[in-house]
Amino acid sequence: MAGEIIPIIMAGGAGTRLWPVSRDTMPKQFISLLEGGESTFQATIRRVTGADFGRPIVITSNDFRFICAEQLAAIGVEADIVLEPERKDSAPAVAVGAVLAKARNEAAVCLALAADHLIRDAAAFVADARTAARLAKDGRIMTLGIRPSEPSTEYGYVRVGAESIGDNAYVLDAFVEKPDRATAERYLAEGYVWNSGNFAFSAGAMLEELTRLAPAVVEAAEAAVQKSVRDLDFIRLDPAAFAAAPKISIDYAVMEKTARAGVLFAAFDWSDIGSWGSLHAVKPQDAAGNVLEGDAAVLDTTHSLVRSEGMLTTVVGLSDVVVVATHDAVLVADRRRAASVKDLVTKLKAEKRPQASEHLRIHRPWGWYQRIDIGPRFQVKHITVKPGATLSLQRHHHRAEHWVVVHGTAEVTIDGEVKLYHENEAAYLPIGCVHRMHNPGKIDLKIIEVQVGSYTGEDDIVRIEDVYARG
Amino acid sequence: MAGEIIPIIMAGGAGTRLWPVSRDTMPKQFISLLEGGESTFQATIRRVTGADFGRPIVITSNDFRFICAEQLAAIGVEADIVLEPERKDSAPAVAVGAVLAKARNEAAVCLALAADHLIRDAAAFVADARTAARLAKDGRIMTLGIRPSEPSTEYGYVRVGAESIGDNAYVLDAFVEKPDRATAERYLAEGYVWNSGNFAFSAGAMLEELTRLAPAVVEAAEAAVQKSVRDLDFIRLDPAAFAAAPKISIDYAVMEKTARAGVLFAAFDWSDIGSWGSLHAVKPQDAAGNVLEGDAAVLDTTHSLVRSEGMLTTVVGLSDVVVVATHDAVLVADRRRAASVKDLVTKLKAEKRPQASEHLRIHRPWGWYQRIDIGPRFQVKHITVKPGATLSLQRHHHRAEHWVVVHGTAEVTIDGEVKLYHENEAAYLPIGCVHRMHNPGKIDLKIIEVQVGSYTGEDDIVRIEDVYARG
Repeated sequence: MAGEIIPIIMAGGAGTRLWPVSRDTMPKQFISLLEGGESTFQATIRRVTGADFGRPIVITSNDFRFICAEQLAAIGVEADIVLEPERKDSAPAVAVGAVLAKARNEAAVCLALAADHLIRDAAAFVADARTAARLAKDGRIMTLGIRPSEPSTEYGYVRVGAESIGDNAYVLDAFVEKPDRATAERYLAEGYVWNSGNFAFSAGAMLEELTRLAPAVVEAAEAAVQKSVRDLDFIRLDPAAFAAAPKISIDYAVMEKTARAGVLFAAFDWSDIGSWGSLHAVKPQDAAGNVLEGDAAVLDTTHSLVRSEGMLTTVVGLSDVVVVATHDAVLVADRRRAASVKDLVTKLKAEKRPQASEHLRIHRPWGWYQRIDIGPRFQVKHITVKPGATLSLQRHHHRAEHWVVVHGTAEVTIDGEVKLYHENEAAYLPIGCVHRMHNPGKIDLKIIEVQVGSYTGEDDIVRIEDVYARG
Repeated sequence: MAGEIIPIIMAGGAGTRLWPVSRDTMPKQFISLLEGGESTFQATIRRVTGADFGRPIVITSNDFRFICAEQLAAIGVEADIVLEPERKDSAPAVAVGAVLAKARNEAAVCLALAADHLIRDAAAFVADARTAARLAKDGRIMTLGIRPSEPSTEYGYVRVGAESIGDNAYVLDAFVEKPDRATAERYLAEGYVWNSGNFAFSAGAMLEELTRLAPAVVEAAEAAVQKSVRDLDFIRLDPAAFAAAPKISIDYAVMEKTARAGVLFAAFDWSDIGSWGSLHAVKPQDAAGNVLEGDAAVLDTTHSLVRSEGMLTTVVGLSDVVVVATHDAVLVADRRRAASVKDLVTKLKAEKRPQASEHLRIHRPWGWYQRIDIGPRFQVKHITVKPGATLSLQRHHHRAEHWVVVHGTAEVTIDGEVKLYHENEAAYLPIGCVHRMHNPGKIDLKIIEVQVGSYTGEDDIVRIEDVYARG
């Protein structure tokens, strides 16, 4: 069955419960939350690069296209990157994936995977994927079920049927929603398993069931694919067609209703890293039960997670807390109530606080920038440009800029004149000049940009030309 | 008695329990912790500027001389600023104050005050100061006693004698050290009061008692004053003479032993703001018992203090916590155990973490600077220079500097050449050049300094000339 399983990686989620590290502009699946520096998206992709798997179909948001492409390039994997023009739930994503897989191969078997789960035992995962794919080939829509370690109220559950359809595989009796604590305890006693949200199915069977149970989803997916356009390395779904898709989960649209559902008991360890509490649980802890990451120090503190992305972060005399410090936001939460962080983020978004959605470090196709100082009539940014990358040709109406090269070499165009600037050289860009920055070198270019003017907002930028085709 | 009471303000303490806001380089008495923007040092000084009081004697550390002078200038008060070459306890400070007061006036009556206490009712304070001074004139050494609001284990207590010596004033039976909880409860039942650490005495009586009970303290104080030198606006005590003073508190050296002690029940509200917990207690709280300062947001959180000096700081699902975020350090602590913060700071100092002692914003006589970015071979600073102020004439061996003026006007000297730079102009200082920055204007000068070189440490600075006489 070499290359027969087509992975569909669902990487469009927002992951607000891991705020302030995970934000709309850079959600948890793309962040290096675990040891080794890889994101869970990259780890998920790498689990499906063996001989059993075909070229992955990644379904993500338009907002994440550059980070997604960059992370694929970093691990040397090619994929179809499908861009959702807006965020729908999982059913439209699965439908789009199935449509694309079926176009490749009428008899395609798909493995739909969340991009934000942690699975350490890749061999066990691949073995289970093979088993699930074999059953899917026979027409089953298989979910990967997880044997519960506790009566969690954070997961949906699966009632396992009596009929065995293979090793550790059974007909599926029913999907049930996230329960309360008492119900969860009963589920555990009665042998229910967690619904991992990872599925194996043949594209044909899934589309048949969708057509029968949620026809609007399939119609929208087919139209959005048919009218999609290739844009750089991306498949950009048609916005109008995709907008017609209902916002519905694949559980609700198909799995709770179909008679074809099966469940395979996963042999691998699994965590959805759904909250800071679950991240604490999967990390190596010290003797006091603490997980300390970055510049952290604690005193008389136990069973806590302290993660700092910069500043010294300290805890005194507390237990069961989560403390996460980024460059522009700090979260302190009860570890056992860390799922409520999403309610905090909802509140912060309602208050229109930029930290709710945006990172201080803004990723762009050419690299990233970060504000390091701001005051009346001035702003200072650190700009890092990747080798070979080019910023747009642009002008500003309200600010002049001073660029000091602190690392690498810059090729700077000012009003048509091109000049190289090396480390410790500075360029001056008067208000209104047409300018462009390019890194012609083999190492990162780092610039300190000092903006001076009556208005330094990000929207005072007139793009005259852009290799990344941005507005 | 106009001008008869000489205030001795003891402003040399470190205040580590209010870390990370209070640090060795800028301790709590000089920080604006309360509404109105004033420090407790300034508020303490202002309470003793009425007709009853003479020119204050401020006793502080050499390290705090500029901030002390600056804060006095800001409220328009002149004082003798006495600089301790090293940190001793309170007895040497009181002795030095008494020696200086007696030199002014043989019959001087002094009021020794901590610079880090909160007293809101200035009129009640002045009335009490008058009463205490009158009793002190008669030879009493008066402590201002505070009626306890709870059986605190954080304060020393005073056992009140039976003999009345005036309205709310009694002979003092005994000073007792910080008790355990049970003892504190007994003290409350038996009518003990807190020792506020503020005293009134005649300089002569205090020096007599010190000579009898702690002669080494008086000898050192007298010698240190006799050999002191005036340096700018400061009285710099002789280091060798002062070094001979034992490290001992005035309570232990005199108050616990003298037969002249009296206690006046203070009519004013009082807090020593000894910890984040006591700061929470004196601040206006919202309906949930929270004190939120700066960019803070909470959810399901009660009886907590959240203070941010910059970044968005959030708390979810916790009670009785203190969260303090500065630009380079975050503290999260149990509000009821906030006094343990000093143990954390001790640990951080042992680990030689700069955040334990130094602020990111470094105050200098000419203004302040703050690092805003750092990387291999570069560093970026924001520098603010006060009107009229001048940095030292200096050179660096390992770094070039780019200065971009973002506010005000700079007079820059480079290898003898003097030039004015206005907003949006940049100066380049090659490695090794002799340079100086001066603010000739009427408003703050703000510069973004980009350093580039093989070493950007603060110690690569050769001072050729310095108006502030620094090494």
